[in-house]
Amino acid sequence: MEITLESPLDMHLHLREGAMLRQVAPLSARHFAGAVVMPNLTPPVDSLERLRAYRAAIMEAVAPFTFTPWMTLFFRPYPTATLAAARDEIIGVKLYPEGVTTNSAGGVRDLEAVEDTLAAMERLGIPLLVHGETHGFVLDREAEFLPIYARWAKRFPRLTIVMEHITTAAALELLERFPNLAATVTVHHLLTTLDDVAGGLLQPHLFCKPIPKRPEDRAALQAAALRAHPRLMFGSDSAPHPRERKEAAACAAGVFSAPVALALLAGLFARHDALANLQAFVSDNARRVYGVTPPARRVRLARRPWQAPERYGDVVPFYAGQTLEWQVTDVEP
Amino acid sequence: MEITLESPLDMHLHLREGAMLRQVAPLSARHFAGAVVMPNLTPPVDSLERLRAYRAAIMEAVAPFTFTPWMTLFFRPYPTATLAAARDEIIGVKLYPEGVTTNSAGGVRDLEAVEDTLAAMERLGIPLLVHGETHGFVLDREAEFLPIYARWAKRFPRLTIVMEHITTAAALELLERFPNLAATVTVHHLLTTLDDVAGGLLQPHLFCKPIPKRPEDRAALQAAALRAHPRLMFGSDSAPHPRERKEAAACAAGVFSAPVALALLAGLFARHDALANLQAFVSDNARRVYGVTPPARRVRLARRPWQAPERYGDVVPFYAGQTLEWQVTDVEP
Repeated sequence: MEITLESPLDMHLHLREGAMLRQVAPLSARHFAGAVVMPNLTPPVDSLERLRAYRAAIMEAVAPFTFTPWMTLFFRPYPTATLAAARDEIIGVKLYPEGVTTNSAGGVRDLEAVEDTLAAMERLGIPLLVHGETHGFVLDREAEFLPIYARWAKRFPRLTIVMEHITTAAALELLERFPNLAATVTVHHLLTTLDDVAGGLLQPHLFCKPIPKRPEDRAALQAAALRAHPRLMFGSDSAPHPRERKEAAACAAGVFSAPVALALLAGLFARHDALANLQAFVSDNARRVYGVTPPARRVRLARRPWQAPERYGDVVPFYAGQTLEWQVTDVEP
Repeated sequence: MEITLESPLDMHLHLREGAMLRQVAPLSARHFAGAVVMPNLTPPVDSLERLRAYRAAIMEAVAPFTFTPWMTLFFRPYPTATLAAARDEIIGVKLYPEGVTTNSAGGVRDLEAVEDTLAAMERLGIPLLVHGETHGFVLDREAEFLPIYARWAKRFPRLTIVMEHITTAAALELLERFPNLAATVTVHHLLTTLDDVAGGLLQPHLFCKPIPKRPEDRAALQAAALRAHPRLMFGSDSAPHPRERKEAAACAAGVFSAPVALALLAGLFARHDALANLQAFVSDNARRVYGVTPPARRVRLARRPWQAPERYGDVVPFYAGQTLEWQVTDVEP
């Protein structure tokens, strides 16, 4: 069994900087024709100058692959002129509530105070990408944020709002209510629940934010992805940390899935007789939601078991050392 | 502010064997006059011969402190004669469903098949101690086990059944329904929720089974402990693991709280103006539930800040390196 995908896309990706960027970027660029690159570096990507330098570093790291890094600015209350100047170089602005995840210390404290900026983004046609979690109890954070999504979706009906890495059935219900909402979902939230993280021995390499939720949440996410809900896009949220930051007294949040994501998705869709919908989930939906055209690159996968590496450098990937049913067999560079 | 406790007791304790036993047993024996010792060693304590040898090793390790290790047998479908022979040397039999926690591989697979043994224990007056979790989703395991407690409590009305390390408001509700049910609660379940384990950076040293639950569960547990519910007993479930088994790719379950438990309890009870109930919670309730008399030893605590050690040997304790408001100031050996 085989499938050929046209320009698979990863609509939520952490590429880091420096040596880590050089290590992980080619792994994404090999399988994906483009990706939405998150701006939560230290310091964050919050100026065009920094964004251009980061984009150049990424382009250098991904060679020889043809790969489009769709850049994002870290949300600030930017003046309209700044947003207008940035518009052609960004795919959106990423909003983090303060302190909710890795390198979000400079995020937004007062979610009411952002609305002038959102209005400007709406006028300029710049999408808003959101890490939608409150500071509440860990299992409730996403659900508690949903009213904020609803408020913005209603108030800014022409603003495209992307609910990033959704993890709950409730988020999918909200997606139905507003046509200007879209969402990304990761492969690890399609495949794991809190049971996988903490039900047996504790698994730091599966620990991420938002934390995976209940089996019924995963079932709802799977169902929406498998039927290729037109506003649900694949976004890996692949987030590498060196092993010593994971197997530690305080473990950083993030699952490194980039090199195994497509193979795992093909396996999931194949097991559910939904391979015909994979193209939409990993590429077409994103093109339509964002109105982007990726470079044309075919990626072929086949049902042929292989063992995922235990490590990529000092990063332990999702499914490390495990046998995957499907693999990427052929890529156009 | 000071308090003197008469023979504090830890009604759920893991003392391990060998070097670890020799390291941790004195830390318990310094603060507690007695403890219920769990039998889930490898292999389990499931014969009188092994139990006597383990008891002797404990007595050797706790010298010079006067300390009663109340021994438990690992649940098997023991013949009545075996139970009758063991009765005077054990405080109870500890039942683990198979595979639910550390060293429970030899536990019970068929919970219906145990009832002959429970009937014999009821006749002989031997309490049943239970790790009450199913194999369901990690957050539901205790709640799913409650009907089994209810069934046994009803079927064996003269059998004392101790629900070990309860973590939910629902377990406390069940406690009200059957007078032959009792329960232990740990200090870490009184002080933490899932937020502490996985809400920020992941904290392997706070990872235990059952996993801490929601804020409302913790609130219910605190309320019951602070009013010294007469069938709720302190049991630390203190479970040391060497650091390399915690800060690892797969982290063992267990919080090592023995050396800080009494100080943390005093702080908790003091903050809630409930110090007058601490004696019942850490000693008197257990004496009444089990009908035991511990050695007479006074332990004095005072409100005097101190910093908990970062390590005891290669074990990282609960509240490692943090400042505790209360401390044990004086112990009778």
